[in-house]
Amino acid sequence: MRLLICTLFLVVNSALAQQSLERITVNGNQFVNESGKKVVLRGYNASDPDNLEKQGQWGRAYFQEMKAWGSNVVRFPIHPRAWRERGESAYLTLLDSGIRWAAEQSMYVILDWHSIGNLKSGLFFRPGYETTLNETFSFWQTIARKYGDNPTVAFYELFNEPTTNNGQLGVCSWDEWKAINEEMITIIRACGGQGIPLVAGFNWAYDLSAAFEHPIEAVGIGYVSHPYPQKRNQPWESQWTMDWGRMKEKYPVILTEIGFSGAEERGAHVPVISDERYGEAITRYCDEKDISYVVWVFDARWAPSLFSDWEYKELTRHGKFFKAKLNTYQYD
Amino acid sequence: MRLLICTLFLVVNSALAQQSLERITVNGNQFVNESGKKVVLRGYNASDPDNLEKQGQWGRAYFQEMKAWGSNVVRFPIHPRAWRERGESAYLTLLDSGIRWAAEQSMYVILDWHSIGNLKSGLFFRPGYETTLNETFSFWQTIARKYGDNPTVAFYELFNEPTTNNGQLGVCSWDEWKAINEEMITIIRACGGQGIPLVAGFNWAYDLSAAFEHPIEAVGIGYVSHPYPQKRNQPWESQWTMDWGRMKEKYPVILTEIGFSGAEERGAHVPVISDERYGEAITRYCDEKDISYVVWVFDARWAPSLFSDWEYKELTRHGKFFKAKLNTYQYD
Amino acid sequence: MRLLICTLFLVVNSALAQQSLERITVNGNQFVNESGKKVVLRGYNASDPDNLEKQGQWGRAYFQEMKAWGSNVVRFPIHPRAWRERGESAYLTLLDSGIRWAAEQSMYVILDWHSIGNLKSGLFFRPGYETTLNETFSFWQTIARKYGDNPTVAFYELFNEPTTNNGQLGVCSWDEWKAINEEMITIIRACGGQGIPLVAGFNWAYDLSAAFEHPIEAVGIGYVSHPYPQKRNQPWESQWTMDWGRMKEKYPVILTEIGFSGAEERGAHVPVISDERYGEAITRYCDEKDISYVVWVFDARWAPSLFSDWEYKELTRHGKFFKAKLNTYQYD
Ligand SMILES: [Mg+2]
Ligand SMILES: [Mg+2]
Ligand SMILES: [Mg+2]
Ligand SMILES: [Mg+2]
Ligand SMILES: [Mg+2]
Repeated sequence: MRLLICTLFLVVNSALAQQSLERITVNGNQFVNESGKKVVLRGYNASDPDNLEKQGQWGRAYFQEMKAWGSNVVRFPIHPRAWRERGESAYLTLLDSGIRWAAEQSMYVILDWHSIGNLKSGLFFRPGYETTLNETFSFWQTIARKYGDNPTVAFYELFNEPTTNNGQLGVCSWDEWKAINEEMITIIRACGGQGIPLVAGFNWAYDLSAAFEHPIEAVGIGYVSHPYPQKRNQPWESQWTMDWGRMKEKYPVILTEIGFSGAEERGAHVPVISDERYGEAITRYCDEKDISYVVWVFDARWAPSLFSDWEYKELTRHGKFFKAKLNTYQYD
Repeated sequence: MRLLICTLFLVVNSALAQQSLERITVNGNQFVNESGKKVVLRGYNASDPDNLEKQGQWGRAYFQEMKAWGSNVVRFPIHPRAWRERGESAYLTLLDSGIRWAAEQSMYVILDWHSIGNLKSGLFFRPGYETTLNETFSFWQTIARKYGDNPTVAFYELFNEPTTNNGQLGVCSWDEWKAINEEMITIIRACGGQGIPLVAGFNWAYDLSAAFEHPIEAVGIGYVSHPYPQKRNQPWESQWTMDWGRMKEKYPVILTEIGFSGAEERGAHVPVISDERYGEAITRYCDEKDISYVVWVFDARWAPSLFSDWEYKELTRHGKFFKAKLNTYQYD
Repeated sequence: MRLLICTLFLVVNSALAQQSLERITVNGNQFVNESGKKVVLRGYNASDPDNLEKQGQWGRAYFQEMKAWGSNVVRFPIHPRAWRERGESAYLTLLDSGIRWAAEQSMYVILDWHSIGNLKSGLFFRPGYETTLNETFSFWQTIARKYGDNPTVAFYELFNEPTTNNGQLGVCSWDEWKAINEEMITIIRACGGQGIPLVAGFNWAYDLSAAFEHPIEAVGIGYVSHPYPQKRNQPWESQWTMDWGRMKEKYPVILTEIGFSGAEERGAHVPVISDERYGEAITRYCDEKDISYVVWVFDARWAPSLFSDWEYKELTRHGKFFKAKLNTYQYD
């Protein structure tokens, strides 16, 4: 009889979980739940849902596996070309499923408009990242209208990695980029988006120093950095503080991409080549400051991979490190 | 013999009318004819000529009927999607006919680029209203070059209803919208457009208060408002004065859309639901100040309709009110 | 034996010439070679390579003929529509050949993005000139990445003829146009373009007076004017000095289009109608100030033509004048 009750309880609990993730908001420099209690997010990047679907991996099992790796958040990098090629309606169907599977595992979702480049000049790093200001605005209208009152969709990452690539992608000042972000936030909120907009700085989302001096004029937002190991030489910590860590004095910060690849591993490339010392350093830095983070990338092919087979048996060094690390955290 | 002369005179007069509407210009806060005499325009909105053609209603009879309803002006709302889908050349053929039929009835024409939204951000209210800054500029180049010396085409309404829809359509300051309008005016005049540019303010062309503080830097223009009944609660008058009426102290003003629908009538929707008291109030307000106006909409289907059958026999309350009212005006 | 050596020397020299044009740079108000010696460029405009290929004229003989006409530089006017319609890859193949044939004749190449109009408003003079800011930026990325270290491609002419056409093409201030040029220069240099960017002013690339007051904020560039005879009434010289010639006090200047057409000749049109007195005046003016120039246009059909048959036997007045003139210059 006891066992039965217990089983019933789990079933009910799981059903509730699907519908009842608490809305996360911003309080000072923390993300908080509905009780006002601090929430620190740690999890994994999906590769593009479109890519996962094509590989036959976009399903409940993928999210169950992430959960087993200690995740309480998952980021969906939505590549503009995939969005256009699959078509808005079909892509939203993918998102519907993924958001539901995430909620079942009590994982929050970050929807990430996964472009790299200069939205002002309209120049991007590779064809898959090409978009326009107008398409970007329209994307956020759509997302806010559709998922604005769904608390699982906790975060809107406005633009993955802003960069001029040292001028190859034209010119954009922080004030110009700031205004574009503020317009996206205005649109999202006017369209009913209750989630938290996440804002990145230049240098491929590494650098928040300009944002520190001239923050976004909007409340209730978070800031992003992607501090891959080779963005700075070791020792990293004091540089991280100057470049992005000091934002956490005033605002919630989430590192929506971190990770490393051993130089000898498949897919090793600048700026990710490093080793477990990076893993130790970045997680210690985050843990000291309640900085959230999301590891790149939960895919057997994309790099730096966390695993190299879709049965999740062959883990990379990176995969071993973070699977172990994320399972050390205690959440209520 | 007398009868014959009289008939001949009418025929000649009608033929002359086709070619000899006087050019309207701006003098102070009035529209004036070539003798400098004040001209107040009152008439009806056609629905989109493209739509009328598809319904089999784009013909001389439509304009004769408008004339019988007391009109001295007709507005053509040219929807950007219709412009693109029919194609510029085919759409201009529609306009050629309509302008000729209007001239035969001694009615002036307002060409209205009938978009709703934010031309700066490139976000619009519905797909039919989607356009770009570039398409809008090109449209006015085409119109000015083709109809610039045709006095029947008295007005160029630059953009039907500017609105950010409370941020859903992004951000645009009055200074930014003002500069866009000034560029349109520059283009029109450089391309030979001798007609009068008409400029609208935000809040779906309702609000001219920003324009009052920082008027368009161009002479010879008029301002527009669309004061539908539910834009303000009753009593309306002092609010109308603050919102748009005080522009008439310095500039000609034309309300290119007014109208009401009984709550019980087909097509009733915010912001048009009201009754004959609105008709009385808005026409009294206009008449006191020599403000021109154009009633929305001379179509059996679009709302608020003035009539519900294409034989013009079943008039709505709105239709009865304005048909009677416009026939009370005396013109020389 | 002597003859043989001499022949061998010529062969070797020609082979070297193909690969060894010296990089031209800017020193003060001069173009200079790698020894720091002043270089003055004088040559001819190709018509669009795409057009020449379609006429069967894009070949080595075309460049040999230009050389026989005393040229040390050739300009390739790349029309945006031709670039799009042929496709980037196929168009680059044309350029590859042309650049090689030019180098064989020891002629430098100016790559000219041959648009006419207002890049800010997106309005252009004719359909063949239509482009966008984005396409223009992408074009220069491509050119800089592909030809950036090729010294034959000595010049990047950023935009052929900027003009608002007195407002018909909208509005653009010098400060706005300056910023667009500066962004193009940033992109080119970041993408590895080692050549010299050439900047034009308004009035169809005639007027550099605004640039004189507010020069482009970049070093190592040159300025362009297109002083066709009818841009000013005679006597021209003092007006040329005010309008563009005084730029040569501080910067290198190259007139990338000059030429005339007798009023009786085929293709005569404003602003090119004049006679040999123009040829005398403009070349004397240039020679006194070490101003480089490129004559428009080495094509039997485009006007003002230098010749009227593709055997180069029937020269126009313009052709006779410049063929003789360019052959008077001595180069080391
Ligand atoms: Mg950057
Ligand atoms: Mg990345
Ligand atoms: Mg309306
Ligand atoms: Mg100009
Ligand atoms: Mg030219």
